Amino acid sequence: MNRHLSRRHFLNLVGAVGGSTAIYQTSRAMGLLPETGPAPNLDLKHVGRGTKKVAILGAGISGMTVAYELERAGYDCTVIEASKRIGGRNITLRHGDVIDEMGYDQVCNFDDEPHLFFNGGPARIPGHHRRAMHYCKALGVELEIMANDNRLAYTQDSDAFDGKPVRIRHYTTDARGFMSELLYKALDRSQFEMPLSEEDHERLRQFVKVYGDLNDDGLYKGSPRAGFKTGGYGKPGVLKETLDFSEILKSSFWRRGMHFNQTEDWAAPLMTPVGGMDNIVRGFVRHLKSPIVTDAQVQGIHNTGGGVDVVYNHRGKRRKISVDYCFNSIPSHFIAGIPNNFSNDYLQALADMRRGNFFKIGFQMRERFWEREGIYGGITHTNQEINEIWYPSHGINKQKGVVLGTYAFGPDQSNKFERMLPDERLRYAAAQGDKIHKGYSDYVENGVSVPWGRMKFLMGCGNRVLDENHDRDFRRLQLPEGRHFMIGDQISYHSSWQEGAFASALNALEELDRRVRAESSASSRG
Amino acid sequence: MNRHLSRRHFLNLVGAVGGSTAIYQTSRAMGLLPETGPAPNLDLKHVGRGTKKVAILGAGISGMTVAYELERAGYDCTVIEASKRIGGRNITLRHGDVIDEMGYDQVCNFDDEPHLFFNGGPARIPGHHRRAMHYCKALGVELEIMANDNRLAYTQDSDAFDGKPVRIRHYTTDARGFMSELLYKALDRSQFEMPLSEEDHERLRQFVKVYGDLNDDGLYKGSPRAGFKTGGYGKPGVLKETLDFSEILKSSFWRRGMHFNQTEDWAAPLMTPVGGMDNIVRGFVRHLKSPIVTDAQVQGIHNTGGGVDVVYNHRGKRRKISVDYCFNSIPSHFIAGIPNNFSNDYLQALADMRRGNFFKIGFQMRERFWEREGIYGGITHTNQEINEIWYPSHGINKQKGVVLGTYAFGPDQSNKFERMLPDERLRYAAAQGDKIHKGYSDYVENGVSVPWGRMKFLMGCGNRVLDENHDRDFRRLQLPEGRHFMIGDQISYHSSWQEGAFASALNALEELDRRVRAESSASSRG
Repeated sequence: MNRHLSRRHFLNLVGAVGGSTAIYQTSRAMGLLPETGPAPNLDLKHVGRGTKKVAILGAGISGMTVAYELERAGYDCTVIEASKRIGGRNITLRHGDVIDEMGYDQVCNFDDEPHLFFNGGPARIPGHHRRAMHYCKALGVELEIMANDNRLAYTQDSDAFDGKPVRIRHYTTDARGFMSELLYKALDRSQFEMPLSEEDHERLRQFVKVYGDLNDDGLYKGSPRAGFKTGGYGKPGVLKETLDFSEILKSSFWRRGMHFNQTEDWAAPLMTPVGGMDNIVRGFVRHLKSPIVTDAQVQGIHNTGGGVDVVYNHRGKRRKISVDYCFNSIPSHFIAGIPNNFSNDYLQALADMRRGNFFKIGFQMRERFWEREGIYGGITHTNQEINEIWYPSHGINKQKGVVLGTYAFGPDQSNKFERMLPDERLRYAAAQGDKIHKGYSDYVENGVSVPWGRMKFLMGCGNRVLDENHDRDFRRLQLPEGRHFMIGDQISYHSSWQEGAFASALNALEELDRRVRAESSASSRG
Repeated sequence: MNRHLSRRHFLNLVGAVGGSTAIYQTSRAMGLLPETGPAPNLDLKHVGRGTKKVAILGAGISGMTVAYELERAGYDCTVIEASKRIGGRNITLRHGDVIDEMGYDQVCNFDDEPHLFFNGGPARIPGHHRRAMHYCKALGVELEIMANDNRLAYTQDSDAFDGKPVRIRHYTTDARGFMSELLYKALDRSQFEMPLSEEDHERLRQFVKVYGDLNDDGLYKGSPRAGFKTGGYGKPGVLKETLDFSEILKSSFWRRGMHFNQTEDWAAPLMTPVGGMDNIVRGFVRHLKSPIVTDAQVQGIHNTGGGVDVVYNHRGKRRKISVDYCFNSIPSHFIAGIPNNFSNDYLQALADMRRGNFFKIGFQMRERFWEREGIYGGITHTNQEINEIWYPSHGINKQKGVVLGTYAFGPDQSNKFERMLPDERLRYAAAQGDKIHKGYSDYVENGVSVPWGRMKFLMGCGNRVLDENHDRDFRRLQLPEGRHFMIGDQISYHSSWQEGAFASALNALEELDRRVRAESSASSRG
C-alpha cells in the first residue's frame, strides 16, 4: 500500500465518518526523536567566592538543589529550615523516627532493620524525570527498579463483584477482551460508515483480535493473560471463567486505577533509591558545604532594593541576615503570615494557591503474607478510603515487611483520616485492608500515619490551583519579586513530584543567572 | 441497578447481537479467590538412608530439584552431567566464562565487574511462578524487581514510520486512543444493535473515554500518557502530535510486543536473582550433598526390572551404576541415540518432540547511553532479526552496562544467526541496533552469543510439539517407563521457563512417591 495514498485515504474516511480530520494528525511531523525532557545543563556564571550572599528558605528538594548549584558557582549560601529535620516532604520512616504532626507525638516503632521502612512523601521516580535522575547520579544515590503496577495485586470495590477482591490481571484482561469484542463486532458488520481499504480493514480486525485476545470468531472467551484457573505448568492449563462485564462497568477501577500504568508518571518502570527516598536528602547533605540552620522559622522577608533581609527565629532568638538573593520554598499559604513587602499581584498569586493533603499509613506486618498470594511489590486499588495498598518491592522473601496501608489523595478521604486520632487511623485502615486480604489486620504489628495536611511547617503538600488563575499566577510566581525567588514543587507544573521541585529550582536559577549576567555586562559597560 | 436484573439484561442483549451468551459467563462462579498455582508442598515418604539409590541425568534445574528433594527423603543420589558446567540452561555470563558451543571457542570478555553480566538462558521470574519462587526462598536466593515493560523504550519497524523508532508510550497511547475513539463512535451512534440500559450505556461510554483518554467529544487528540513534547515540569506541558493510525496498523508491534506486558508471564512485575540467574544454581549446589559428576556422558539406560542400569563415559572411562530409580532430563532428541530398552510408545513420544533454538547476544557497552534517553531497564522491540534489545535493570547510573543485543526466538531468525561465525553475529546484531540508537555499534566493546541450538549436550531449548500429539505424548512422558522418569521443562506445559522444569520435577517426584508408598504398603501386607 502506498503510504501517501493510505494517508489521504485515511483522512478522507475519517472525514466521512464525521470526526475531525485533525484527530489523526497524519501529516504532521511525528516527533520520533528521543524526548524525555532535558537533563539539567546549567551553566551558571561563577560570581567569585564571598561576593554574593544567598538565603535559601526551606531545606527540601528545591532549596537544596539551589544551594548545591549556587555553591558551585561561588555563592555564599545559608539554608534556613523551620523544622528540626532536613528534607522537607522527602521523608523515609524507620525505627525510632518521630512524625512531626501538629498535636500528636507519633514515633515509628518498626523493628530496627534496614528493609523495614516506607517513604512518607515521594516514593517513585520514572526515567523521564530527567532532573531527578540527574541529581541521583550526581549525588551518588544508588537506584533500583521497583514494582508499581502488579497484575497479581487486586482491585476491590465495595459496589462490584460482591465487594470481593479481583486480581488485576483478571479484571484488565477481561475488560480488554469485552471491549475488543464490541469493537470487532462493529468492524465486522461494517457498522462504521468507514470506507476502510480492504487491507486496513483487515489489519484493524486483526489488531482488535490481538488486543483483546479474541478467538477466531472475534469473541472473547477468556485468555491465559488473566492467569490460569488450574494447571499450565505441570498439567494442562485451564482458563478462568470470565468476569461479568456489567460488574466491571459498575466497578470504579476503570475510572483511574486500571489506567495508572498507562500514565506518563506511573507507567513501568519506576525507580527508587535503595534503602529509602531520603538517600537523596543524604546525598545533598553529603555534598553541601553551606550551613543548614534547622529549627529556624522565618519571620520577615523584605526586599531592600539591592538585596533581601530575612529575619528568623532560631531557638527563641531573633536573627537577621542580609543577602543579595533569597530563594523561598515556604508553602505559599504561610507567606501571607510572614511580614514582607511584596507587591499585591505577587501576594495575590501566592494566595490563589491551595494546598493538597495527601495521607499515608505504613504498617509493619509480622509476615509477608501477600507473597504467599504471588504478590511481590506493586499496588492493590480499592474504592475504600485507604485507596491503595502498596506491597514492598524490597526485602522479598524476608519474614516481615512494611506495607503502605493507606495512600489517600482525595481531599475527602484525607480529611477523614486527619480528623482521627493516630491510633484510630490505624485501626480504620487495617479494617479496610481486611476486605482485601483475609486476616490483614492480624498481621499488623504497628504503624504510623503521615497526614501532610497536619505536618508542622507544611500543613499540606502540592498545590491545587484554580484553572482560571493557573497560568497567570504561575507566570508571575516563576519571576522573582525583587531579589526574592519562589521555588518548590508548588510553583511547578508537576506538583507533588520531586521533579517539580527540581524544575522550580532550575527555573529560578536560570532566571537568576540571566539577571546576574545582565548586571555584570551592564556594570562592565558602566 | 439490581445486579440480577442487570445480569439477565446483559445476557439478553448479547444474545440479541448474535454473540454467544457463553462469552460473558456472567452467572458462573467468578473465581475471586487467590490463585497463583500451588507452592510446592511435597510430602515424600522417607525411605531410610542408604536403602534407595537414584541416578539423576542432567544437572539443570529439574535434576537439581529432584536431587534436593530426594536427599531430604533419604535417597542416595548421584547427579550425572554431560558438560563441564552445572546449571543446564540456567547460565549467567561474566568475565572469563566460556560458551560451550559446538565448534567455536567463545570467551566472555566483559570487564570483571559484578554488574557486567547477562543471563543467557532464563532471565525473569513472575510472582505466580510459585515453584520457582519457593525454591528461591528455600535456597536463600536474593531476588530483586527488574524492569521488563518500559514505556520509554522503543518499537522500531522497518515497514512503518519510515523505519524510525517510536517510544512505546507514544505508540501504545495513540493506538489505545484511536481504538477507543472508534468504539466510542460506534456506541455514540448506537450502531450496535445492543439494547443497553441507559446506565450501562453511559458507563460504557465513560469507560471507553477513560480507556483511550478521549476528549469531551469522544475524540482522541493526544494524551499526556504519550509523554510531553515539551514542558510539563517547569513550564506548561505541550502534547505530542499523534501518530498516524494507518502507520500503527502497518507496523508489527501490535501483533505481539505491544501486548507482552499483558501476558501472564511477562506482565509486571518480574523478578530476577540479584547478581545473576545462576544464583539459583549456586543455591542448589550449596545445599546438595549428593555427588554431581560433570563431564560424564550417558551411554546406556536400561530398566532391569527391579532398577535401572546407567552407563556413562567419564573422562574416557566407561562407568556403570545400578540404581533403584533414574530421573532423566537429557534432551529428548538425544535419547534415541543412547542405547536403551524403552518401549516403542515411549520412544515415539520422545521422538515427537522438537527442540526450539533461542538465540541471545550480550554486548558490553562502554557507556550506558540508553539512560541518557530516559531508559532504565526494559525492552525495545523491533521487527529486525535481533527482535529485542534489553537494557539492564541493575547497575543504574554506572559507566558501563551489558545490553542483551539480540533475543531471537523465531526459528528463522535463530537459524540465521546460528549459521554465522561468532564475530559475524555480533557485527550483524550491532548494525541492527544502529537503526534504533544512533551510534549503537560504536558503544560495543565486546560481546558473546549464546546459540542454544548449537550448545554442546543441549542442541536446542524448550520443546515444539505438534498440537495433535501434544496431550497424548505428554501423558505418556509424564508417567515413568519402568523405573525411569523423564523430567525437564521439555515435558512440562510451560517449556522454556524454569517453572516448567520445577513443575516437571515435582510431577515426577509425586509419581515416584505414589509408587514407593504403594510398594511399601504391598510389602508390609506381603
